[in-house]
Amino acid sequence: MLFHVRMDVNIPYDLPPAEATEILAREKAYSQELQRSGKWRHIWRIAGEYANYSVFDVKDNAELHEILSGLPLFKFMHIEVSPLLRHPSSIRDDDT
Amino acid sequence: MLFHVRMDVNIPYDLPPAEATEILAREKAYSQELQRSGKWRHIWRIAGEYANYSVFDVKDNAELHEILSGLPLFKFMHIEVSPLLRHPSSIRDDDT
Amino acid sequence: MLFHVRMDVNIPYDLPPAEATEILAREKAYSQELQRSGKWRHIWRIAGEYANYSVFDVKDNAELHEILSGLPLFKFMHIEVSPLLRHPSSIRDDDT
Amino acid sequence: MLFHVRMDVNIPYDLPPAEATEILAREKAYSQELQRSGKWRHIWRIAGEYANYSVFDVKDNAELHEILSGLPLFKFMHIEVSPLLRHPSSIRDDDT
Amino acid sequence: MLFHVRMDVNIPYDLPPAEATEILAREKAYSQELQRSGKWRHIWRIAGEYANYSVFDVKDNAELHEILSGLPLFKFMHIEVSPLLRHPSSIRDDDT
Amino acid sequence: MLFHVRMDVNIPYDLPPAEATEILAREKAYSQELQRSGKWRHIWRIAGEYANYSVFDVKDNAELHEILSGLPLFKFMHIEVSPLLRHPSSIRDDDT
Amino acid sequence: MLFHVRMDVNIPYDLPPAEATEILAREKAYSQELQRSGKWRHIWRIAGEYANYSVFDVKDNAELHEILSGLPLFKFMHIEVSPLLRHPSSIRDDDT
Amino acid sequence: MLFHVRMDVNIPYDLPPAEATEILAREKAYSQELQRSGKWRHIWRIAGEYANYSVFDVKDNAELHEILSGLPLFKFMHIEVSPLLRHPSSIRDDDT
Amino acid sequence: MLFHVRMDVNIPYDLPPAEATEILAREKAYSQELQRSGKWRHIWRIAGEYANYSVFDVKDNAELHEILSGLPLFKFMHIEVSPLLRHPSSIRDDDT
Amino acid sequence: MLFHVRMDVNIPYDLPPAEATEILAREKAYSQELQRSGKWRHIWRIAGEYANYSVFDVKDNAELHEILSGLPLFKFMHIEVSPLLRHPSSIRDDDT
Repeated sequence: MLFHVRMDVNIPYDLPPAEATEILAREKAYSQELQRSGKWRHIWRIAGEYANYSVFDVKDNAELHEILSGLPLFKFMHIEVSPLLRHPSSIRDDDT
Repeated sequence: MLFHVRMDVNIPYDLPPAEATEILAREKAYSQELQRSGKWRHIWRIAGEYANYSVFDVKDNAELHEILSGLPLFKFMHIEVSPLLRHPSSIRDDDT
Repeated sequence: MLFHVRMDVNIPYDLPPAEATEILAREKAYSQELQRSGKWRHIWRIAGEYANYSVFDVKDNAELHEILSGLPLFKFMHIEVSPLLRHPSSIRDDDT
Repeated sequence: MLFHVRMDVNIPYDLPPAEATEILAREKAYSQELQRSGKWRHIWRIAGEYANYSVFDVKDNAELHEILSGLPLFKFMHIEVSPLLRHPSSIRDDDT
Repeated sequence: MLFHVRMDVNIPYDLPPAEATEILAREKAYSQELQRSGKWRHIWRIAGEYANYSVFDVKDNAELHEILSGLPLFKFMHIEVSPLLRHPSSIRDDDT
Repeated sequence: MLFHVRMDVNIPYDLPPAEATEILAREKAYSQELQRSGKWRHIWRIAGEYANYSVFDVKDNAELHEILSGLPLFKFMHIEVSPLLRHPSSIRDDDT
Repeated sequence: MLFHVRMDVNIPYDLPPAEATEILAREKAYSQELQRSGKWRHIWRIAGEYANYSVFDVKDNAELHEILSGLPLFKFMHIEVSPLLRHPSSIRDDDT
Repeated sequence: MLFHVRMDVNIPYDLPPAEATEILAREKAYSQELQRSGKWRHIWRIAGEYANYSVFDVKDNAELHEILSGLPLFKFMHIEVSPLLRHPSSIRDDDT
Repeated sequence: MLFHVRMDVNIPYDLPPAEATEILAREKAYSQELQRSGKWRHIWRIAGEYANYSVFDVKDNAELHEILSGLPLFKFMHIEVSPLLRHPSSIRDDDT
Repeated sequence: MLFHVRMDVNIPYDLPPAEATEILAREKAYSQELQRSGKWRHIWRIAGEYANYSVFDVKDNAELHEILSGLPLFKFMHIEVSPLLRHPSSIRDDDT
């Protein structure tokens, strides 16, 4: 089941650099593991912004929340979720 | 080059049904032809709304505008465009 | 799987009364059938507004959209959807 | 009498962890006691957000405010309240 | 129990004048009857706007909605409701 | 002359408690003195919010500003003012 | 007593031209009479918009509302009112 | 050439009082010198807010920006600028 | 003197096509004449929207308003104006 | 390919002055180098605001993001990007 997610990141400017670096490294590893598992299907950077549009493929709302609330940057993010489905004009039979 | 597009459709309730039907048929054909060409890479319905999130792969801004302004429903749509690029945490080498 | 839905109804003031009456009767029957099936778990009127807060229990996003886009009043509604899940502080084991 | 409440939590990132832990434990106990009493009828997590939708069943506005302003997290919350009532299309005789 | 209500009136400019006059006369009579009963405790015009701030004293949310949805101008109004209670700094023992 | 005022209070969470207590005590005394004088005609708590709706009866805009800017909590408040007048549908001859 | 007023005009595009011309002529005469009386102290056009910023000098809120609601274009306007007073940094003793 | 300016002041509550006092004294002197020169034609306090509406008479956009960015409180202000001109209904020949 | 202008066009869908065609032809001629004169220095289409960003070079606010309010599409436009000036980091001595 | 960019700068008031000075010097050098290369085609100050409107000419979205995210002030900026193209009413054959 697909969800469209926009994440805006806002790291406090006075966060100690070492702490920021450590969080960002964990964030990247966490994201890539979920991408490899197929649950984080797409992630795109939005030009000019510290933000991304992502598409998740999860089994239900609970799994989506578990993933998002587990993001190392979660406390510094503003997140908006929209449930998606196959569009009736899509040329494909599945939801890709 | 990728663009994220949100389209909200608002057809006037008093548009003659025959006219609406005809526009919607043209819209679907137009969309599917662009999907087949690879320029309209993704289209998803947003649950509960007469709206979609789409991803376009075009050669430049002008081609994007030509496609969007040519939508049969263009005059009944509110459209928001965001330029995208590969995210640095993506596990893929290209922008998919 | 639960979804929180807010529906705001805005019927054009010049819609012929007979047409409005007919749509509203169909809307009520449609809603009650879904309530009896358990898919439309709650519906509450918001005091002072032509609007409701509802909770749906469906198997996925596609079923939610099928239900909402099938509302006889759909074209006169503004709808906002939020995916829900069991709250960690809930005293119940399920999502009620 | 029912009220729909949305609570958004925003804990300052530099709050000492021990203080945060203590507040969250009190919040959970406070919420569960009110749930057991029947006054906090529903609480659902909103997927992807540090927020919840709740339904309260209280005897009047004053009791609602006493409950909400007594939340251990109250000073870190943004709260929106909407008075609810039985919907005329509900299949139930009461306001559940 | 008190509720603060803001009502913004927006009568379509092409409503036949006779119809508008008739609705406004019914609106005034309806409002004055509720004022005399004590349920519509205050009504003030907001300077420069076709709008009012009102305070209602009703027994519950259902009665408030019955009153507001029964306004002859209801279909031409945008209404916002806020539940009120006695302020802890008030010098009076009741909610006046 | 009447003014409708909404005050939202936002005290910084790290304000020393003794300082907060002292300001709140002065705020209450200040408010009650103005209520007794008749200039602060009504004050109601808004359920679930650290906010109030008030009605002031002052001789002019300058007096209103002198009162509001003199609030001990003024620097922690967001304030919105609307000038009021007797509503033409009021059953009373004055502006109460 | 001074009030700052912003007026945005939005005349329906299908209003018969003769009717529009007649209303605009009355609007101009009405405005100029109030300017000559000193009650409409300033009126400025906002560049690029069908809108104006004005300053009124009236004896109270009721007079302000009587003037604004009497504008021939009132039903086609969106109006925002802010009560003004002499600024403490003004070099003048009065409110000009 | 006239410009309408709204300035909202938001001084951090933990700015050292001596620093705040010093800035405010410079702000007042700066404003009064510009008022005397005729460039800051009007300044009015907005009742209930730490804000003002002002009208500037400058030779061009560059001079306006030089004045506004030179305000001692500039870094604590939110400023909105609207270019003004003589209104066609004005009874005066100039832009006063 | 430069002004940044955003124009959003919204032509009523039921405007007779001949009338729309005629207005659009006049709009184009009007715009091109001003471009040739140097007063309308830049005009760019915003991808996906019936809107443009433009830069005008005029002698004062009055001339800007005369140009904008004379646009054949003016009554179908929403316009936002921002006064511009040379940026201190510009590598050019003028405002280009 | 052109992009319209609005940048709003918000430097924390308690950033050490030496640090601010150093960042601003780097920002200016960075901007001027990009202007000389032709990629940062225009930059204009918005009167009364710590903000600019800019036009970039880059080969794709990725290059735009590389430039913007490399701004020394990036972490203190709010940025909005709009893809541009030649307007059909332009008198020029290219996108200038």
